[in-house]
Amino acid sequence: MRTAAPVLLTPGPLTTSARTRQAMNLDWGSWDEAFNQLTASLCEQLLAIVNGADSHHCVPLQGSGTFAVEAAIGTLVPRNGKVLVLINGAYGKRLAKICEVLGRSFSTFETAEDEPTSAADVERLLRADPTVSHVALIHCETSTGILNPLAEIAEVVARHGKRLIIDAMSSFGALPIDARQVPFDALIAASGKCLEGVPGMGLVFARKEALAAAAGNSHSLAMDLHDQHAYMAKTGQWRFTPPTHVVAALHEALLQYHEEGGLPARLGRYADNCQVLLEEMARLGLRSFLPAAIQAPIIVTFHAPQDPHYQFKAFYERVKAKGFILYPGKLTRVETFRVGCIGQVGRSTMQAAVAAIAEALREMEVLDI
Amino acid sequence: MRTAAPVLLTPGPLTTSARTRQAMNLDWGSWDEAFNQLTASLCEQLLAIVNGADSHHCVPLQGSGTFAVEAAIGTLVPRNGKVLVLINGAYGKRLAKICEVLGRSFSTFETAEDEPTSAADVERLLRADPTVSHVALIHCETSTGILNPLAEIAEVVARHGKRLIIDAMSSFGALPIDARQVPFDALIAASGKCLEGVPGMGLVFARKEALAAAAGNSHSLAMDLHDQHAYMAKTGQWRFTPPTHVVAALHEALLQYHEEGGLPARLGRYADNCQVLLEEMARLGLRSFLPAAIQAPIIVTFHAPQDPHYQFKAFYERVKAKGFILYPGKLTRVETFRVGCIGQVGRSTMQAAVAAIAEALREMEVLDI
Repeated sequence: MRTAAPVLLTPGPLTTSARTRQAMNLDWGSWDEAFNQLTASLCEQLLAIVNGADSHHCVPLQGSGTFAVEAAIGTLVPRNGKVLVLINGAYGKRLAKICEVLGRSFSTFETAEDEPTSAADVERLLRADPTVSHVALIHCETSTGILNPLAEIAEVVARHGKRLIIDAMSSFGALPIDARQVPFDALIAASGKCLEGVPGMGLVFARKEALAAAAGNSHSLAMDLHDQHAYMAKTGQWRFTPPTHVVAALHEALLQYHEEGGLPARLGRYADNCQVLLEEMARLGLRSFLPAAIQAPIIVTFHAPQDPHYQFKAFYERVKAKGFILYPGKLTRVETFRVGCIGQVGRSTMQAAVAAIAEALREMEVLDI
Repeated sequence: MRTAAPVLLTPGPLTTSARTRQAMNLDWGSWDEAFNQLTASLCEQLLAIVNGADSHHCVPLQGSGTFAVEAAIGTLVPRNGKVLVLINGAYGKRLAKICEVLGRSFSTFETAEDEPTSAADVERLLRADPTVSHVALIHCETSTGILNPLAEIAEVVARHGKRLIIDAMSSFGALPIDARQVPFDALIAASGKCLEGVPGMGLVFARKEALAAAAGNSHSLAMDLHDQHAYMAKTGQWRFTPPTHVVAALHEALLQYHEEGGLPARLGRYADNCQVLLEEMARLGLRSFLPAAIQAPIIVTFHAPQDPHYQFKAFYERVKAKGFILYPGKLTRVETFRVGCIGQVGRSTMQAAVAAIAEALREMEVLDI
């Protein structure tokens, strides 16, 4: 058994607090009232984050975030619906792939990895194709860390009478999304991201009327969010065995989220992490891939050094040996690597991480940055 | 945060060891080599339990056991296949429901909840319907705790040139299944049952040739076991975010499984738990629903007392207050409750549980048992 772990500067799983992990040191009966209360409290706290208690249900789902995205598409897009998928990275592409596998009609609109989808684009696309029923958007695309203009796009989608599905995996809990102002049929998140829980469950905030109308849509038994919610509403229990320890950890993480000061405090800390990271990396000469205006304070993509001595794997291993786990780049055009700003870390950790990066590059004799 | 937990005498989630839970006190990078090694070690140990290293792949999947059952049906039964589902309880019915939702042709054969499916039944059914391509069987049906005759049925299925899918959720790790002697295309298990890990992932042992031929079958992206395996074989990583802490807990649980003496020791302990439970409950006058010959040493269904003072919820709460969580019955014909024999518990715990049950019944003035 390992007993010390490096800090995870990745898009999740990320570094959690000791208190969150210790909440997993108990076994819960999945049928027991005490566990039902834990689930109910979880959903209530989560809905409060988006001001969604009146308009939406919180439907937790076993599995990773991708399971929740697939469940949302499969449950909320009728079999004769058509999804316009807005893409500027790998997660947008995955969303389109889900539509394809599930046999839902879809079209895609792709911008460059450093170019947010604009509301004007969506306006034009919806005018051109009235058969579109749903628009699907990645809020913060983890491939680069780019932020798409959710509020503006949501306004256009609503004005056209279409439904919005938001993959907010990387942003939920840190970037504000208010269900009273941003209309959406589904907003998808996961336990192991900005909420600082451990991975193992997804969350779908589904508009009540949309979910009620979704009976029989799903391609899957396990991923049917209509049935998942109906069973939970009736019994207080999960429909199939829940990841009890993951649920307990997320519940404990949410208590800390509120103690820290909720979304403004979480955003403030991550924004500070991001700022420190960008500044200190710039001092080393390492340039970020995105301009500041479209950079979400979640994960930052950096251009890899030019120097022929640089090689990602060796760099990764050296930085890891100094206590920090980085993340590889995901771009095909340019060589990059990524550093996450999220998790139970603050500015001193970011400074120490950059110091470790500097030291690793020195050891590797990487001069041309 | 709760700090003491009752013992779970349920079919899972169950009581795990402190060492298993402590393995969750570390965060792992899902992209990191150390985590890849954990996954590889997990799969290797799991395949060894069924002697399946030569013939089968171990494909872990995020979610609960039901997710893994659905994934196995969706991936391994071609879209033009037909499944004969053998039913004697709720999990058999769920398997048929999965076939229905996924649009796979299926027929069902249902016996009473206290009657195992026989090999002769399967022989007759396969003779009568040559269009059946796959037979699906619940090894130990948790609804009652009944054991179905796997080896005999597998022999008949193989002789007819059909494929066998085994839901071994409640039995895997405790009841012997040898892939060298029992032919199957898929055997499905989960982390939180007899392996004594925590819930949050399923496992499918898929026959190598069957999995290789299954590209494009799946109704789902996230539950496509062909792609899940192909990606893991290529990269060592999970295709989508793994439940890292659940994986670490299962790995630690498997180390303890081997230290305890592997399957024979696990079966020995559970059989002893079951024997003690049956004997001590009989001394109270509580009768088990199943005859001993078809009772798996996993979970025991007891007839509820006749006395009008008996009421399950009150009984459950009293026993819980004394430190033990029981499980409700799942039969419609007769009133029952269930007591699990699995998890990190031994004979003294079973004795203490029965003492708590006796005390609860006395307190409730339940005399007519």
